[in-house]
This record gives sequence, structure tokens and C-alpha cells, in this order.
Amino acid sequence: MNIDKVIKHLEENFDKDLERVREFLKVPSVSYTGEGIQETATNVKDLIEEVGGNAEIVPTDGHPVVFGEIDEGNEHTLLIYGMYDVMPTDEDGWIVDPWAAEIKDMPQFGPCIINRGAVNTKGPLGAFFNTLRAFKKVNGKLPVNLLFAVEGEEEMGSRHFPDFLEQYKDKLSKAEAVLFPFFEQDEVGTPSLTLGTKGLLYFELISKGGEWGGPKSRGIHGSFNAWVKNPAWRLVKALSTLVDNDEKIVVENFYDKVSPLRKNEREILNKQIEEGLFDEEVFLENYDVDKFKYDGEGIDVWEKLFSQPQLNIDGIYSGYTGPETKTLLPHVATAKVDVRMVPHMEPDEVVDSIRKHLDKHGFSDIEMKVYNKYYWSKSSIEEPVVQAMIETYRDMEKEPQIWPINPGSAPYYVFERYLKIPYVTGGMGHGARQHSSNEYCTVEGILDFEISMARFFENYLKQVEKK
Amino acid sequence: MNIDKVIKHLEENFDKDLERVREFLKVPSVSYTGEGIQETATNVKDLIEEVGGNAEIVPTDGHPVVFGEIDEGNEHTLLIYGMYDVMPTDEDGWIVDPWAAEIKDMPQFGPCIINRGAVNTKGPLGAFFNTLRAFKKVNGKLPVNLLFAVEGEEEMGSRHFPDFLEQYKDKLSKAEAVLFPFFEQDEVGTPSLTLGTKGLLYFELISKGGEWGGPKSRGIHGSFNAWVKNPAWRLVKALSTLVDNDEKIVVENFYDKVSPLRKNEREILNKQIEEGLFDEEVFLENYDVDKFKYDGEGIDVWEKLFSQPQLNIDGIYSGYTGPETKTLLPHVATAKVDVRMVPHMEPDEVVDSIRKHLDKHGFSDIEMKVYNKYYWSKSSIEEPVVQAMIETYRDMEKEPQIWPINPGSAPYYVFERYLKIPYVTGGMGHGARQHSSNEYCTVEGILDFEISMARFFENYLKQVEKK
Repeated sequence: MNIDKVIKHLEENFDKDLERVREFLKVPSVSYTGEGIQETATNVKDLIEEVGGNAEIVPTDGHPVVFGEIDEGNEHTLLIYGMYDVMPTDEDGWIVDPWAAEIKDMPQFGPCIINRGAVNTKGPLGAFFNTLRAFKKVNGKLPVNLLFAVEGEEEMGSRHFPDFLEQYKDKLSKAEAVLFPFFEQDEVGTPSLTLGTKGLLYFELISKGGEWGGPKSRGIHGSFNAWVKNPAWRLVKALSTLVDNDEKIVVENFYDKVSPLRKNEREILNKQIEEGLFDEEVFLENYDVDKFKYDGEGIDVWEKLFSQPQLNIDGIYSGYTGPETKTLLPHVATAKVDVRMVPHMEPDEVVDSIRKHLDKHGFSDIEMKVYNKYYWSKSSIEEPVVQAMIETYRDMEKEPQIWPINPGSAPYYVFERYLKIPYVTGGMGHGARQHSSNEYCTVEGILDFEISMARFFENYLKQVEKK
Repeated sequence: MNIDKVIKHLEENFDKDLERVREFLKVPSVSYTGEGIQETATNVKDLIEEVGGNAEIVPTDGHPVVFGEIDEGNEHTLLIYGMYDVMPTDEDGWIVDPWAAEIKDMPQFGPCIINRGAVNTKGPLGAFFNTLRAFKKVNGKLPVNLLFAVEGEEEMGSRHFPDFLEQYKDKLSKAEAVLFPFFEQDEVGTPSLTLGTKGLLYFELISKGGEWGGPKSRGIHGSFNAWVKNPAWRLVKALSTLVDNDEKIVVENFYDKVSPLRKNEREILNKQIEEGLFDEEVFLENYDVDKFKYDGEGIDVWEKLFSQPQLNIDGIYSGYTGPETKTLLPHVATAKVDVRMVPHMEPDEVVDSIRKHLDKHGFSDIEMKVYNKYYWSKSSIEEPVVQAMIETYRDMEKEPQIWPINPGSAPYYVFERYLKIPYVTGGMGHGARQHSSNEYCTVEGILDFEISMARFFENYLKQVEKK
């Protein structure tokens, strides 16, 4: 394997390769509306076949998954996880056509592609194939065998991805580890690496008029609250039993399985805080927050972000919420709530504890409608695939910021739960404004990303052979 | 005064008079948008002048009030309160042009005028002038002197009406009592009479990120709730301190001035409940409610509707309230709340008690934005103006349902507070769907109303002379 030649090829062919990324971005693929989903799935299939793979568009009960395989008789096999869907573009403020992949100069970053999916994640996915083509051109083959599982419903919660994994378990079981190619550099160039993701439980609590009182089928005149109870009050009273005044969660058994950070990860985190790679004051300033839930500083507060679960009100709604005044006794009140679960919390057990808590406090009438359950997932820093990514960043003169866990959530647990293999997300490159107007990635970062993917393969083989 | 001739005149001229009501209804007068306000104010001025009065359009900081005076040297003087504004017509479901005053057959009621304001309250106001014209035609004069105060902002909370009263206090002080002409018969023909209205305090509680924590200027990623507090939780915790699980208000000093129903009014209410004029089961069925806040039946629950104040959540809002899921840590949460005040609660004292309660419970950061303060008002059943209305209904073979107080609110307190005179709302006639599509009044009821107004004047003079 001649990495230097591959990199040289990537550099020399970048103008052409950049156009390939732009072409890929220009086709909409909005999972919420279905726009361009089939066409983009076909484009992904074609990209896999172009580098010598076999690919098929696998139907699911939702949008299809593109499965692919490039078996070149190598000793090692990686699974490439990807998503070809993106969010809608109905936000205000786009300064360009969100599907024109225009290149614009941005003050801090120089030339950038502005397009839906530029960073999340059709930019990196498209660029990844540039690296693969370079390997084929220069070396005739890829350094590792690859499997592909590229889904079209990530932005809708990957609802049918587990079904696919179940169905393709045997084929996917050839993989030793999973790579999710992504532009991981932040605004100042520091790449970050997460050793897992928290789980997500998303549910709605719904209070409606019923046997306990309250109007059952429609809002009624506000003045009747003198003798008719109000579902909004009932929801407020039920919710208020779940946390104390400091927002500490007081649901029985909620914390039963909460495990502290792994010792080595806590040490790495502490070291990075001391080195200034993590700065809580910068967080407070960026997000316009005066203080944290917890006292202290440095590791004392940072570890909470990673080690603590949450019970967050994402939204609450009842009755009249327009301007000025309108009196109303509403018949329904709802709260959308998410729980972020740390290892080793189980979503079904959390649902159960909250349900029991509500019942015990006399709120058995309040409906709990569960929308999503993502398990937490965890990769060890010792895994070759993780070490390979860290080494790649160092090769490219970047010390990564290592997060013990992503406080957000993603469906990566599926790899652990279904395939029992570790995964890593990564790559050089920078982009931002995902889910917002003017999502972008830097042009320079695309080349860095392509090079980092080549180096990653090299490092992976080193690491896995060392083990 | 020859009442029978007046009534005969009203009957014989009804077709023409009905057209006058329709003409009056056809001109929009939407206070929220200002549409037709000036034209309608002029129409009211013209109607007063047509029956020999002097009238002027009095500017306020909002829409004008029409002041009028018909002084015919009578011994007694009444003030006619009215409103010439109506609600907008932007609801779905109108089966006719809301400004065409079309007459349509309605299954239960026969011919009805369908138009915005048909019942609330340009229908009765227009018809009232038909009665006045009949008196002038038949007797050459009115039986009592009249003053008029017809405002154009009732639907917006009568914001500038007190200013007008203050300014015209001297002129208005000639009146002995106030009459608000209205179609008071319900679906089965029973007229109701209220001996006052509860006061209304409408405010919004606003929880925003600040020194206590929480994002201050914008919603942030939901996953940060692991270490950043949530204004929606804070609002829930603050609200939950205000009532207990049975919605009993637990704000200190809140009930200090709450007075029980007057003894004679409680007796009248009880008698009417026994006679079946009030039936709580009918209420539960009509409003689709399973049970009341309070145990018991008959007088035990009915008196609560009239004697108890309320602290009602009209609406609550924070964060993401759309379909499905979106994670968000919101920066603001608000609740719209109304207090209905019974005698002798004072709105400023209620505001004060709630503010102190919140502060005492550690929620001094929660903003309390007061929108409206209406005082309660109360007319004694012994007042000649009230007795005259009851006698009028009985003359027309209807036993009125007498409400100790209107659980809703209206700005009638202004007459008590500014002019120190009693008032009554009333008249035969039926209409409904106020503030909704297809607001209507029955054609037959308009004539009954016109006759009832003639009888009311006769009865008023009898009552006031008896006293």
C-alpha cells in the first residue's frame, strides 16, 4: 500500500473530486418529505459499484438502506456506516439555493460549500468515495475489504435500520469494526472523538379531562375553572413530582444503573481540561448561560455532562398560547420529554420507573406516549479502530479532543447490540450549521478529510496487527 | 305612556324595523383590526340623533366612545351602556358572508339572522333603537331620559372606557341606573339575569434563563440539560406551588377577602335549583365533563361556581410543540393565567399575594406580566332596575334564571366604581355562537326583545316610584 502516492493523487485531482462531492450534494434527499430519496439511494449504489463493489437498494418499511460489499480478498474488513438523508430546508435565512452547492467565501473559513447536508453528512460521505477511487487508481485495490450500510432515515430516528441489521446480520458479521466518516474538526481546527453516545428516550406526557375531572373533548369557557378542574394544572402537578427545585430527578430507581465514567476516560478528560482542550467558561459564553446545574469547575462540572442522565422538557403545550389574552379551560395538556441515558441505563426500565412514579403519585390517568428509544453505546479507547483515528489526527498534527461520551444521541448502539463490534466516527474537515440555514463545509477541509481517510486505513491496519 | 300602542306599533312595523337591524349589522366594526369602526360609530351617533338626542363621537387613546343624551324633561334618567365593536370573522366554517346579515332557517329556531355581532351585541343595540323610535312615534317622547355610552373596544377589554367615564363623569352622573340591552334567552327560551360579574385578573408568568441558570437568549441543544437547567422545569416547579393536587389554591392571603353568597341570593339560587332551573347534570353533559372540583350536588356545587375564585391556566407554552420529536433545551417558558375574583377580592392585592408567594418560594426571577384587571361588580336584586327586568320577563310569561353572579367577567364594575349606580343586562330574544362562526339571533326574538324593552321602561318607572 503506497499511502503517499494515494495522497498525492488526491491532491492532484482535488478540483475534479470536489465537483463529484458537489454533484452528490445537489440532489435533495429529505427523509421527512421523501424528496429525492430514491435517486440518492441509487447514487450511493452507483458510487459503491464505481469502486468495484456490489451494492443493492434494500427496501424497508420506510426509506431503503443501501447495502454494499467490496471484497478484495484482504485480511481485514470494516463496515462503513452512512446516511444519505438530510433535514428539510424550510428555515428562514438561506443566502443561497440550499441545493446548488454553491462555493462562497466565508470570513473565517475561506471557500465553503453551502448546501443542505454539506456537513451532515452527505459532504463527508461523498468525499469518502474520492479516497476509495484514489486507492483503486493508485494501488489497484483497497487496503481493507469494505461493507456498506447507508441508511435514508437517520434524521427521522433510524426507525427501520435495526430491521435491516437484523436481516443482514450474517453478511455484516464479516466486519471487525464500524467507521462513520464525518468532518470532525471544530471552528478552530480541533477534531473531536467520542467514545460512545448517550441513549435517548423521547416521550410525551398527555393530560386529558377524564374521570378525575376536566373537560374531556374540547376546551370550555375559562370561567368554569371555578368548579371544573384543568388538565394543564394536572400536568404541571404531575411533572413537578419528577424533579426537585434544583432539577434533580427524584423518580425512584431512575439512577439505579447509572455508572460513573471509566477511570481511564476520566483521567484523559481531566488531562485535557488541564491542557485547555475543554473550557467550561467558553461553553457558558457560547451558549449564553450564567451557571451550570452543578457547582464547581473543571472536571467537577465537565464530568456531569458525560456521566449524568437528564430528564429534559423539550416542549410543553396547552390551551391558548397566542398574543395578548384569551381565557380558556383547555381539555388537554402535553409535555415532550427526553431522557438521555448513560451506561448502563435501560430505556424500558426508565419508562417503567417513570410510569410507576406517576401512578404512585396518583397520576395514572396521564398517558405516556413513547416516541423513540435509543440505547447508549460505548467504544473503548483501546479498540484498534479508535486508536487508528487518534493516530490519524496526530499524523495530521492535530491533538483530538476526546469525549468520554457524546451527550447527544445517535443510533450507534445498533452496532454493539446487533453486531457486537466497536465503532468510530471521524475524519478531518470542518462544517457546521447542521439542521439550520446555510449549512456549510470548508473546501480545504474536504481534501484534509480525504487524506485523513487514507491515513486512517493505514493506521487501522497497523493497530489491528499490533493487537 | 301608552305601552300597548307602542307594542302594537312595533308589531306592525317589524318588517321595516328588521331591515334597520340588518343594515346596522352589515357594516363591519372589528375592534381588533379597526375595520369599519369609524363608520359604525357614526351610525350609532345617527341612531341617537334620529330619536331626538344629541350625540358626539368621543375620541379616546383607542377607538372612540359614542356619548349621547336624550333629555325630554322626564323625572328619571337611565344610562344605556352598549358596544358597537365585534370580534373578527377569521374562523373557519361560516356558511354565509359574515357581513350580509342573511336570514336563514335554522332547524330549532326558524328564521335567524346570521352575522357577526347578531347577538354580541349589535343585534340588540340596533333593535333597541326600534323601540325608542316607536315611543317617539306613538307617544311623542320617551318615558325616561336616556344617556348613552357606546364603546368600540369591548372585545379588546374596554381598555379606554374608564378614561371616558372619568372624563364624562359629571354628565353621566344624572343617570340612576345602567341598562345593557341584550338577547338573554337561552336555547329553550329561559332568560337569565345576573346580579354582577366576577372580576378578572389576567397575567402571564414568564420563566427565562438567568442568574439561576438556563439558556438566556436562545434554545440550545437538548442534550445540554445534563448540566444546564431548563426554564420549562422552573416554570412547572413555580406553578406547582400555587395549587395543591386537588387544584385548591394555596397562595397565602388569596382567600382573605372572599365573601360567601348573600343569604337571599343563596336562597333564590337554591329555590331555582329545586325547581330545575339549574341542573348540574345538564352542565356536565353539555360540556363533556365527568365530575366537578367539589363533591356534592345541587346547591353544594352550584354555589361554588358563584362563590369561589379561580386560578386557571389558560395556556402554557415552551420549546418544541410540533408533531413527533425534536430535542431542545428552551430558553423561555410561559403560562397565561386568569384569576376570577369574587366579592370582595381586589386585583392589586391578588397580584401582590401571588408575587409574594413566588418570591417566598424562591421564584423571584419569574416575571409576572399583568394584562388585564377587571374588578368584580354586584347589583342587588332589590334595585328597581333589576326588579324591572325580572317583572318584564314575567310580563312576557318567562321566569328568569337568576345568577348570583356571572362567573365570567365584563367591565361593568366601571359603573359601580365610577358612577356608583346599579346596572342590569337584559332583554328577551335569543342568539348564540358569539366569537364563533355563524353567530346568529332569531328573527322572532328581535320583536320579543323590542317589546321587552318597552315593558322594561314601564316596569322601571313602576319600581322606582314604589321605592
